[in-house]
This record gives sequence, structure tokens and C-alpha cells, in this order.
Amino acid sequence: MVPRKYLLSEDDMPRCWYNLAADLPTGMQPPLTPDGKPIGPEMLAPVFPMNLIEQEVSQERWIEIPQEIQEILARWRPTPLRRAVYLEQHLKTHARIYYKDESVSPPGSHKPNTAVPQAWYNKQFGIKRITTETGAGQWGCALAFACNLLGLECKVFMVRISFDQKPMRKLMMKVWGANCIASPSNETHAGRDILARMPDTPGSLGIAISEAVEAAVSDTSGQTRYSLGSVLNHVLLHQTVIGQEAQKQLKQAGEKLPDVVIGCAGGGSNFAGIAFPFVLDKINGANIRLVPVEPAACPTMTKAPFVYDFGDTAGMTPLLPMFSLGHDFVPAPIHAGGLRYHGIAPLVSQGIVEGLLEPQAIDQLTCYKSALTWASTEGTICAPETSHAIASVIDEAVKAREEGKEKVILFCYSGHGLMDLSGYDRYLSGELPELRLSDEEIQKYQKSLENLPKPERRKSGRW
Amino acid sequence: MVPRKYLLSEDDMPRCWYNLAADLPTGMQPPLTPDGKPIGPEMLAPVFPMNLIEQEVSQERWIEIPQEIQEILARWRPTPLRRAVYLEQHLKTHARIYYKDESVSPPGSHKPNTAVPQAWYNKQFGIKRITTETGAGQWGCALAFACNLLGLECKVFMVRISFDQKPMRKLMMKVWGANCIASPSNETHAGRDILARMPDTPGSLGIAISEAVEAAVSDTSGQTRYSLGSVLNHVLLHQTVIGQEAQKQLKQAGEKLPDVVIGCAGGGSNFAGIAFPFVLDKINGANIRLVPVEPAACPTMTKAPFVYDFGDTAGMTPLLPMFSLGHDFVPAPIHAGGLRYHGIAPLVSQGIVEGLLEPQAIDQLTCYKSALTWASTEGTICAPETSHAIASVIDEAVKAREEGKEKVILFCYSGHGLMDLSGYDRYLSGELPELRLSDEEIQKYQKSLENLPKPERRKSGRW
Repeated sequence: MVPRKYLLSEDDMPRCWYNLAADLPTGMQPPLTPDGKPIGPEMLAPVFPMNLIEQEVSQERWIEIPQEIQEILARWRPTPLRRAVYLEQHLKTHARIYYKDESVSPPGSHKPNTAVPQAWYNKQFGIKRITTETGAGQWGCALAFACNLLGLECKVFMVRISFDQKPMRKLMMKVWGANCIASPSNETHAGRDILARMPDTPGSLGIAISEAVEAAVSDTSGQTRYSLGSVLNHVLLHQTVIGQEAQKQLKQAGEKLPDVVIGCAGGGSNFAGIAFPFVLDKINGANIRLVPVEPAACPTMTKAPFVYDFGDTAGMTPLLPMFSLGHDFVPAPIHAGGLRYHGIAPLVSQGIVEGLLEPQAIDQLTCYKSALTWASTEGTICAPETSHAIASVIDEAVKAREEGKEKVILFCYSGHGLMDLSGYDRYLSGELPELRLSDEEIQKYQKSLENLPKPERRKSGRW
Repeated sequence: MVPRKYLLSEDDMPRCWYNLAADLPTGMQPPLTPDGKPIGPEMLAPVFPMNLIEQEVSQERWIEIPQEIQEILARWRPTPLRRAVYLEQHLKTHARIYYKDESVSPPGSHKPNTAVPQAWYNKQFGIKRITTETGAGQWGCALAFACNLLGLECKVFMVRISFDQKPMRKLMMKVWGANCIASPSNETHAGRDILARMPDTPGSLGIAISEAVEAAVSDTSGQTRYSLGSVLNHVLLHQTVIGQEAQKQLKQAGEKLPDVVIGCAGGGSNFAGIAFPFVLDKINGANIRLVPVEPAACPTMTKAPFVYDFGDTAGMTPLLPMFSLGHDFVPAPIHAGGLRYHGIAPLVSQGIVEGLLEPQAIDQLTCYKSALTWASTEGTICAPETSHAIASVIDEAVKAREEGKEKVILFCYSGHGLMDLSGYDRYLSGELPELRLSDEEIQKYQKSLENLPKPERRKSGRW
């Protein structure tokens, strides 16, 4: 029997997170204020606890994972590395396809890898309550789960249209004790302003971020902070346990290194989690391709410019150096809610500028078709986000067959799709359109970036 | 760090199923026709393939698992044995609590352990299409999954009220290629009859069984058979991989034998899966308590008599020797849909008569309370069915604390509750009543059993 999975014990868990910022040849450019001044740690203090801000700006390569966090992660980690034997057979490929199964966490995705440390560091800092926003609900569930285990209050502003259309995610948060409310709400100035002007608005991630940040900074007791589920350096850092475990498990499987590492990318955190430890191998000379995959309806990495832009629609956050479609951009309502973000993590952005990463965009019909191929071969139902990685994997495996080449493909199975079946239903019913963002549309949203500072396009020229 | 989980490799998978029928001291009584004649294998041939009928009547202790079935089970098996460290701490108990996590299968429960072999044996026998019924949908999803992997057609008659109220399960079956229709339907005589008399009926499991059996036996090509997800001997047989793996994993954890083994019981299959291998230990002299747990709203094992009764409401199946509330009994609409069955597996029934098993009934409010304790300590959301086992485990662990005793508790975490969150919502909103079946109600339904043959109450007297 070809082994289907490679397991590690708790003793094999990574002891440190890997910080790519330490190894990028030309370094990272700092976040800025709208008038172009670098943002120092103290300016972030009302929003995040100082211990997480220190991680955000750290230049250390390895950052130790506290024992207590390791113990909580050990509830579901190390996650299995699985071999997709049946997909390989179906594609008649010479490629060996491995996937890191992050769907086994209690909330069903990679998100708790950072929700747990974020909640833990907040608690260490004396914080009693965390606020956040959520779109489709994966992140809200992960933070609700982490706060529940650590005894913190959790308040989640959920985009109203998702709040109404996805009652199951909302109920998961409720079971884990979180207070999940529809955004815009009457609880913040930002929410009341919007409701006064647009009482029937479906809400947006931008509005929800504004509400969550306001709810954190306006608590005069100083015991509330805000938490973000992707994009920022410390969030990507926490996800690197994924790739470090995969490195050990590939050795277990008798493989040296993968030829290609693939992950879907919205804000960039699950891709970073699986890929960054291998970026270090690449920097050290290994021949590995690293492919973040985004929706053709939201082609940040493949079509947008490298700019300084706000992380949110309302312009409340610092300016971050990243590929961005513009903070005014409203992505089409694709079902991969986790990939509907106008920007992409600064660390991923600099990796692209440097030539270390090779982004790819795929349309949603190809992705759902791939998800169904996966369901009928490997047998599991993947998240719509994850289907972007699978579509790219199938593409690579078919190329390997056509070229008659052996190839080792590794990807991150970032989450299951059990709470997202309505998208499958619409695809099977033929109701989903192919969605690709046109160049004209892209031009339109760039106007919002005109008066903002510009980052340097730093490149060492090694790749 | 106290280890959280005990994992086995594919090489450690059980090679045989364990057949308790071979070891019950006074043997099993045969299924009967309504006029009291024993049913021979040939009379079941239009309904089931002969290779499964042979397993149904087998007296062999160990039945080899075909290599191909092992390979499919290895997609998710061996499942983890986990230690509930956080629940132990919360309860301040001296008990060590272990659970076999069957929620990790692609459909999310123990059901595919039998869906896969049933589909495989049907395919071996030349069958092209399988029909079945499903209530809440766990079993329908598992059979859809298995048929999809093996290239068989699958038709699921789903009780109309669940079909309308639980669209997610229906969509899972659709993703796996099954044809799921609401029952009663216009596709069978049984369905049309009911619809003519009661056009607005919400349907019932009894009606759905009648439709599925009719759809199988009326296919004149002879290429369709029917499949059942619990109750029958061969179904319980296939589940015994659970307990056999747990035996190895407990040794890994440094435990000799559990003091008590607990599982929820509707038809009896997940309980049988975890417990029957330990029944053999008990028969061989070990001091182990084996506890199947049922809802107080459907107290088959704890309050019903041991009788011969039909497996379905319409009386189309053979008479089975079992504890039964009567085939006319309609359980209250508790959320643990998988435990709403008027009877209990004949093998479990004989185990109770013999004194080997100690059944227990718990009301749904206690169960949901336990499920929330579980979610906030162990961190996962369990199926409403599984919460019955957890309620019993908490009871045992608290007793261990009060008695100051060490104790090893093992239970079957039969499935996750991600598709069943509306029950949690109703509990949290205070809308759920405590439901216990009264003695008067029980008396009422016994009338339907009056003219049926009676089984002997055989007991060796050893327990």
C-alpha cells in the first residue's frame, strides 16, 4: 500500500516561528502615515499589545514559541501531511502530490495557528477583550475558539450580508462564547454613520474593520485590543509552523525537497505558512518554485501595482507597502470570501518584487471544477479558497505528465468546505459566471492611490 | 507535556473485523417472518448482495478485511485516540479520559466504516446502484461518499422534513454525486400512496425505508440493492475497527484496559464499534463496564421490552429479536436525529439480555450542557448524538473524583456537529424542553407488538 499520510508526534512540533523578514535580501520598508512618515511601535500601541508589535517589527530569524502556546497547538498539531494518491492516479501523472491538511483544526482551517498566539499574547499583556472583523466567518470562528480556550472576551463584527446568509459560522462563534454582531452596527460611530446614510447596506470588510478598531481603541479601560487574521508580519510568522512540519514530513516520505510549493492567497497567511520555510531553502540555493494563487476576480499579485496603500477601505490603518488594487476596490462576490482582499501581505509582496515567488490567478469556474475532481478522487470537500491551490496543483501535475517528468508538488489544504456548500450548489446548478477583472476596472480603482507615497521597488537581482 | 493524541500508521490497521456473534454464550436468535418462520439467506437476496448476507449470518469470530477495503479506509484511518486533558482538568477528576475520534472521516462520522465495505461488496457482486434512506443525513452522506469513490450510483431517500430543514447535508450528497430526493416521493408505490393520503406529511424514517427497499427490489435488471447504516449484524461488524485500533492505542498510552467504555446508541453501530472488541476481553475475564447511552426521549434499551419487531414502520423487513418501543413509535423531534430509532441492534440487545452491557438514558438538556462544557474545554463541537456519550463520560469522571479513584474512561467521539449547529442555537436560546418518554406512552405503542412471535430471554448467568 502506498502510504496515505505522514504523521508526527507532539515532540516533533516546531519550537520556533520562522521570520522571513530576517532573510529578505533588500529588507522590508516600514509602514507609513498618510503623509509619508514611518510608523513606530508606539503608534500601534492603542490597537495591538506591545508584545505582538515587537513581533511585527522583529528582524530575528527564529522566534521561540512559548511552551503554553505549543501545548494548545498540540490539540490538533502536528497536522497530517497526506499524499493525494487517488488524484495522481486520476491524472495519470508522474508527479507525487503531498498536501498539508490544515482542515483538521477545530474551526476547520489554518486560522487558529495565529488566533491562539494572538489571544495568548494579549492575555499576557493583561488584555481582557479582543475585537475583530470577519467576512465569511473563518477568522471570526478561529478567534472565538482561541479566546474561549484562554478565557478572553471576543467581539466579532461580521459583514451583514454574511451574517444573514451564513448563519452556521455565526452559530459556531456563539457556541465558543463569542459575541458576533452584524456590521454596520449601532455600537460604533463608524457603524452609526453608515447606517444613517445607508440603512440597507449589506456591509463590507472595510466597514467591519473600522468598527472593530474603533471598539478596541475607544475602550477607556485600556483592556481591549484589536486582532487581524492575515496580512501583517506577525500573523504570517505564526503560520510558519505549517511549512516547518511539512519539511520534516517530506523527509519521512523519502523526499528531499519539493519542486513546487503552492497555496491560495487572499491576505497571504496560509501561503506564507507553507511556503516561507521553503523560501529560506531557496535563498540558500535550492531550486524550488513558490506559487501563491489568487482569484482572477481579485488579481492583486498578478495585475496590481506595488504601492503604499491602506489596509482597510476607510483608511484608518497605516499605509503598507504591498501590491494593491486600491483600498476602494470592491471585489466581485465570489464564494472564496477569504480571498476577497484588495491588497496582499507586505512580506509576500516583497517576495514577489524580489522574484522569489511566482504568483498565479485562476478563475472560479476552473477552481470549482478542480474541487469536484478532488471530491471524487481524494474524497474530501475543500473550502472554495483551497480550491484555488488545487486548480494550480492539477495544472502542475498535468504538465508533469505531458513532459514525462517526475515532480514533487506540495500544497496547503487550508480548510474544509463543510460550511460553504452553497457555492458548490450554485456551481453544480450552472449559476456561477466566470469572473475576471478587466484592465479598465483595475485602472479605475488606482485613482485612490494617486496622492499616497510610493515604495521603492527593491530587488537584489539574485532571482 | 501530557500527550494529547496517540496515532497509528496504516500498517497498524486491523486486518479482520470482530464478530461478536461467535462469542455470545447463548447465541443469537434468527430473524423471523411475521408468522414466525426463520428467515434464510435466500429470502434476503433481492434486498442485499449474497456476500453481505453471508457476513450477516456468519458465526466466524474474525472475518478478513479485503486489501482494497483497507486501502480505502486508510484515507482517514487509523483515526486518532485523543486524551481529553482539558476536560479532566476542568472536572478536577482522577479519571484519565480517552476518546476515539471518528469525526475525522471525510463525511465527519463513523458511518463510512461500513459504507465503504457495503459499497465494495455490492460492486464485487455486480451491483451498479445502491438505494438507502437517511434521516438527518449522516448515513446518506457516508454512502454517497463511498459510492462516489467506487463508481456506483447512489440514491438516497431523505425524510422530507430533514430534506427541507437541513440543506447542507443534501448538498454534501450532491457534491459526492448522489441523487438525494425527498421522501415520500412520486418514484415509488409506497411514496405515492402516502402522498395521496397525506400530501403535506413531513415524512418519516419508516416511509423512507419502505421507498428505498421498494426502489431496490423493483429494479428488474437485478443490478440494484438496498443498504442500511446500522442495526444489522454485518453493519456492526464493520465498525469493530474502531475498538481494535483503540486497544492498540491504549497500550501506546501505557494503559492496560479501560475501566469503562462508552458510546451513544441509536441503531447501535458506533457503540458496537468501540465496545465489542472489549466485550471479548470481558468474556475472557476482564473487569470492564460497557455502557451504551440513549436519549431519555427514546429509551429503547432502558425501558422497552425484548421482543421480535419489524425494523421499519411499515413492516416490510424481517422481524428482529431486539429491545423495541414498537415499530409504530414516533420519537420526539430531538436534535440527535441519529438516535431516533424505535429498536436497537439485535447484537446489542442480546448483549444487554446476557448482562454484558449496561445501558443508560440521558435527557437532551443534560447532553447539550455537556456538549458546551466539551466545546469550551476540549475545543471541538460534537454531534448532538455524540453529546450523549460525553454526558455519560462527565458523570463517570465526576464519580471518580468523588470516590477519589483513578479510572480509565474510553468513549467514541462518533462525529462532529458542524452540520447540526441549529440544535445548539435552540439550546442556547433556551428553547429546548427536557424530553423524557413516560411509561404511559411506552405502554401505548406496545400494542403493535401483541400478535408478533416472542424471542426467548436467553442468559448464561455469567454476568
